[in-house]
Amino acid sequence: MTSQQPLRILLSRATADRLRERVDTVLKGRPHELLIAEPTRGHAHGNADVAYISREVTGSSTKHVLTESLEAFYESLRASPMLQWVHVHSAGLDRPIFPELMARGVKVTPSSGANSEPVMQNALAGLLALARHLPELMRAQRENRWLKAGELTMPRDLRGQKAVIVGWGVIGQRLGEMLRALGLRISVVRSSAQPVEGAQECVAFEDMASILGDADWLVLACPLTERTRFLVDRAMLSALPPRAHLINVARGEVVREAELIAALREGRLAGAYLDVYEHEPLAADSPLWQMPNVIATPHSAGHSDGNAGRVDGIFLDLLARWSAEHP
Amino acid sequence: MTSQQPLRILLSRATADRLRERVDTVLKGRPHELLIAEPTRGHAHGNADVAYISREVTGSSTKHVLTESLEAFYESLRASPMLQWVHVHSAGLDRPIFPELMARGVKVTPSSGANSEPVMQNALAGLLALARHLPELMRAQRENRWLKAGELTMPRDLRGQKAVIVGWGVIGQRLGEMLRALGLRISVVRSSAQPVEGAQECVAFEDMASILGDADWLVLACPLTERTRFLVDRAMLSALPPRAHLINVARGEVVREAELIAALREGRLAGAYLDVYEHEPLAADSPLWQMPNVIATPHSAGHSDGNAGRVDGIFLDLLARWSAEHP
Repeated sequence: MTSQQPLRILLSRATADRLRERVDTVLKGRPHELLIAEPTRGHAHGNADVAYISREVTGSSTKHVLTESLEAFYESLRASPMLQWVHVHSAGLDRPIFPELMARGVKVTPSSGANSEPVMQNALAGLLALARHLPELMRAQRENRWLKAGELTMPRDLRGQKAVIVGWGVIGQRLGEMLRALGLRISVVRSSAQPVEGAQECVAFEDMASILGDADWLVLACPLTERTRFLVDRAMLSALPPRAHLINVARGEVVREAELIAALREGRLAGAYLDVYEHEPLAADSPLWQMPNVIATPHSAGHSDGNAGRVDGIFLDLLARWSAEHP
Repeated sequence: MTSQQPLRILLSRATADRLRERVDTVLKGRPHELLIAEPTRGHAHGNADVAYISREVTGSSTKHVLTESLEAFYESLRASPMLQWVHVHSAGLDRPIFPELMARGVKVTPSSGANSEPVMQNALAGLLALARHLPELMRAQRENRWLKAGELTMPRDLRGQKAVIVGWGVIGQRLGEMLRALGLRISVVRSSAQPVEGAQECVAFEDMASILGDADWLVLACPLTERTRFLVDRAMLSALPPRAHLINVARGEVVREAELIAALREGRLAGAYLDVYEHEPLAADSPLWQMPNVIATPHSAGHSDGNAGRVDGIFLDLLARWSAEHP
């Protein structure tokens, strides 16, 4: 890139329309051009310097099944040899395109924290719904049926129960705060065993089994890494008491899903709230959909109407900094 | 009661079996007799001094529909002219038997606080389930259907929303704490307008409408009194914006149910979580059961396995005090 060339930023049409003026302001007179990604394949841009993968770009894609518009966006990323930086709306960078770009020397930045509050709220909603037996109560509701006091399973006092939170990022910490305020005891599993404030125990991923024997809740809120991939397998599920529930708002590949299904089926686990799956979308014939003590949502825990604004704000802040560092 | 006569305590067989030794300890050698209530009518005791209406006594009764065993218990209460004190497992004293007993000069004590934490948790579970669109997501789950990002209604950021909490007892205060920790703004409606800590507004019941215009949540956690009966009627519901949700863990008669149903049907209210109803059990043909944005539970918000122990503890403490005051 010579001083004559404008900075070229690849983004979707909707994102460009929304951000054009704010990008102008951030770049303070530096020559630049917005490259509008076409939603169909075969129209790749070959000259992007920067790209912004906003929520509109991923659309209804999952990590495993891409929409054409996302494939088309990836075409432009691959066709741009001068690409230096890609910003992404998500908190995790586990889609295969990101290691591929990083291997080329492209910087990839996530939108850490933009959706952590909604994700935490969903984990809490799932935990409370299971603790208060909402799936059972809502089944009776669908049948216009008033469950008498003796007909419904008695919920257990939540105060005093033990929650093991795996991952101590913003989501884990905020959930820990809320659960402590509800009177639960908190144990933490993370990259190191160094104690954290407010937790009665803290162990590294490799020692997780040692603190599961008296757990009531196992909550996954960690990134997917080589240390967390399939961390929750048959052995780990067997270390939990049968009264325990699993909550997964992290990534599907942290759990061996077939072994989770077996544990639920055999009553070795009381129930689960799952937002993420080994393969997404979850197959229509997965037994998880119809299990009575499972709440299954479609990787939607992070959805909230304020996210787009927060992610745009992070992108524009980083763009200002990046432009200053790359004059 | 002369000094020759033992103190006679009416209770259910299960309660007597569970508490016999602890009652002996509490009464410290004072002569007493446990009167076991028969579960069928026609066997009334006529000589009770004290009675304990534990959860086993009310069983699957509602305020409006009594089991035979509860009717039989009431027979003994009515047949005992020397009855001085009745302790009840519930927090509310709105069943018609209580004013009837009080009019006779019988002291009636509730088990305040014994189930307030589970009730608060249920209100929070309902609020979070509605905020995070769990009813919509669980409908898709029942159809084994993965909702794509564009197909589900986008939840609104919960942080910054306004919750109006009606009633500032233990349940209201604890819920206020939890909602503040989630970033909501709290307004309070109660018997007086005197400010309360942590709330941005506080008004008396009669001025409630004045603070509803920008509310997101109207949460009922007040006792049923002449001031709160039918507090939430058509006019009050019209004062709420259509995005608002109602949560009722108080008593059904705080709401004009037909007017609530109309508001939900006409989209003047976004949804509701209801645990209590004008008539209980809720009729099988009530439209509330099948409304898509309504979560309806069978007056079960307070159920929790620790309640019975907490209620027994309250009864035994009060019995020690009562016995000291009535030698």
